[in-house]
Amino acid sequence: MSGVATDDAHARACLSAVADAGDPLMGALIDEYGAAEIWASLRAGAELPAVEAAGGQRPATPPARQERWRARAPGIDADALLSASAEMGGRLVVPGDPEWPGRLDRLGDRRPYALWLRGVQDLRNACLRSVAMVGSRAASGYGLHVAADLACGLAERSWSVVSGGAYGIDGAAHRGALAGGAPTVAILACGLDIDYPRGHEALFADIAARGTLVSEHPLGAGPTRHGFLVRNRIIAALTPGTVVVEAGLRSGALNTARHALDLCSALMAVPGPVTSALSAGCHRLLREWQAACVTDAADIAEQLGPIGEELRPGRGTALARDGLDEESQRVLDAVPDRTGAGTATIALAAGLDLDAAMGRLGLLAAGGFIERCPAGWRTRPDSGTEGR
Amino acid sequence: MSGVATDDAHARACLSAVADAGDPLMGALIDEYGAAEIWASLRAGAELPAVEAAGGQRPATPPARQERWRARAPGIDADALLSASAEMGGRLVVPGDPEWPGRLDRLGDRRPYALWLRGVQDLRNACLRSVAMVGSRAASGYGLHVAADLACGLAERSWSVVSGGAYGIDGAAHRGALAGGAPTVAILACGLDIDYPRGHEALFADIAARGTLVSEHPLGAGPTRHGFLVRNRIIAALTPGTVVVEAGLRSGALNTARHALDLCSALMAVPGPVTSALSAGCHRLLREWQAACVTDAADIAEQLGPIGEELRPGRGTALARDGLDEESQRVLDAVPDRTGAGTATIALAAGLDLDAAMGRLGLLAAGGFIERCPAGWRTRPDSGTEGR
Repeated sequence: MSGVATDDAHARACLSAVADAGDPLMGALIDEYGAAEIWASLRAGAELPAVEAAGGQRPATPPARQERWRARAPGIDADALLSASAEMGGRLVVPGDPEWPGRLDRLGDRRPYALWLRGVQDLRNACLRSVAMVGSRAASGYGLHVAADLACGLAERSWSVVSGGAYGIDGAAHRGALAGGAPTVAILACGLDIDYPRGHEALFADIAARGTLVSEHPLGAGPTRHGFLVRNRIIAALTPGTVVVEAGLRSGALNTARHALDLCSALMAVPGPVTSALSAGCHRLLREWQAACVTDAADIAEQLGPIGEELRPGRGTALARDGLDEESQRVLDAVPDRTGAGTATIALAAGLDLDAAMGRLGLLAAGGFIERCPAGWRTRPDSGTEGR
Repeated sequence: MSGVATDDAHARACLSAVADAGDPLMGALIDEYGAAEIWASLRAGAELPAVEAAGGQRPATPPARQERWRARAPGIDADALLSASAEMGGRLVVPGDPEWPGRLDRLGDRRPYALWLRGVQDLRNACLRSVAMVGSRAASGYGLHVAADLACGLAERSWSVVSGGAYGIDGAAHRGALAGGAPTVAILACGLDIDYPRGHEALFADIAARGTLVSEHPLGAGPTRHGFLVRNRIIAALTPGTVVVEAGLRSGALNTARHALDLCSALMAVPGPVTSALSAGCHRLLREWQAACVTDAADIAEQLGPIGEELRPGRGTALARDGLDEESQRVLDAVPDRTGAGTATIALAAGLDLDAAMGRLGLLAAGGFIERCPAGWRTRPDSGTEGR
């Protein structure tokens, strides 16, 4: 969404500043009455309606929660939020937008009200062939090495890596993905103007330049414990599978794994030395949660394969290709079939500058249209783009 | 079996020297006609009968194989084999003997014709609560450490460890079990007068003194590639579960794992670093063979628990207790209930010397009657031995 926001998007932007992230009551209210109506009621200081529950009428929203929302409402200025975001190159994406990742709808009442984005990648396209990679903040050298190695291998297979931007495994996964040349998506638990953790400032700048930063919190929102926990559901929901690379028994990564299980996503764990407490969480996933044991990028791709293949454009339907914007179509037309060509050659042929071409190439790779080759990029033999 | 051998045992001793180990044709002939009759035919140079197959008549034993057996028969002297074995403290155990482990009958036609034993432990009792622990010869420091640690922990829980006596994981497993104070059983692929591998001479002496050495080959038989492979079926069949501690993709331990699967035994694997080729076999077992992921002795005991408990004496039936020899009964009577007592005290009370008492205590522990405690040994609360 760029330019003028719809009433719905406006209201969702405000509600993301008013209600705690992932509050199922707010989610149900928005689903039933629409964000605009709920936001109007809160601004007017009116009583909110009750929501229909599966088994009948749910009790009305608890007065204390309504009170908190109403108290916050007057301080929210949608235009200010949106223009501040736009100033730093951000955008708002809400359900119904072309960029909204449909997988998030699996969260039901806990679906984010809206997502604040920064970065060059189309979020929906980047998540088509994606995998969540999570693990401990206080990772071992082994864990960091394996995370970077797996992420790079996945990137080389045109899988994008989704993670939480934290120290440790998350950071290694993002860096590995960037090194492998695929877009990476970081879901942050605070506003996108806040670099948290501080030491990842440069990494976040890299991700904004070559991937996408995502938050369900508006600018200015600081990180909270609640924010970290509910953030994990988005990491799990954006992807068809979650890999836990290294995690102790009390790691937050197990919370993400639980979300993956609840969503019937593929759950994978990387084993490690049984003498390392930092792998004990992964071993529990293998033993008790029926996680698949994965040891390299090929294993992960195999676990996700059927899912990714279904979602890949060019398989039986040209729908996704038709959905590409005009610049991406031009870049795709400029990518040779077998021998491939370098980015500069493709940019020239498509009539775009290098940066713009790189961004489009990343999107096309994430969408499964093209793949890396010794010369640079070529179309995928199975993408339905050959012989155009 | 001590003293005079029956005709059947005599014949089985000879057949173990005549036919390749684990030849299903010889197994079927013995099952159908009895070892004595087959041995008599071979000695007389007569044609062997055909055996009944599941679907009807099987073709007669191939002439070449009969020829080989007949050519070897005249050189076999049962009395010499048995007395040489007895001289080094060995014994022969055949199906039907009280010491024959019933689990071996699961091998069907591939059941050993007979077992040559050396050591202080009753083989059947030692295998009641037992686990097979196998892995690579060229193990890493990690693998050796973990094998010894797991075996010791299992021994402390009164599980005996069965392995193949090889360098690497096997050796570490035997040593860990001895350190933990439980009997350990080594299945060798050669005659028990041959210390193979050479560097395990001292270990084999230790096992003979505190556990049991087992072979299906008579004295003098050297190790062969075939012998190693068929040996693995005995390791898997003697136990209710097999743990692969560390194994590359081409390790013989995967052959043992295959036997465990075929026998519907519990199959377990210990994970390791994904960066180690020596753990790749374990990870394949976890990923493709549905092996349970185990990281410590408690995990292994949990996987085996229900099986071990069923087989433990004192659970609902006193049958196994009645089956104890008189010396073991006396030692069991001398073991206090809660506080426990040291080995010397128990030996004194039972009127046995220390060595004999130690042997009986090991047997009683393997049978689940007693357990280690700070003072030495006490009865297990659930063994039905309390309040005698």
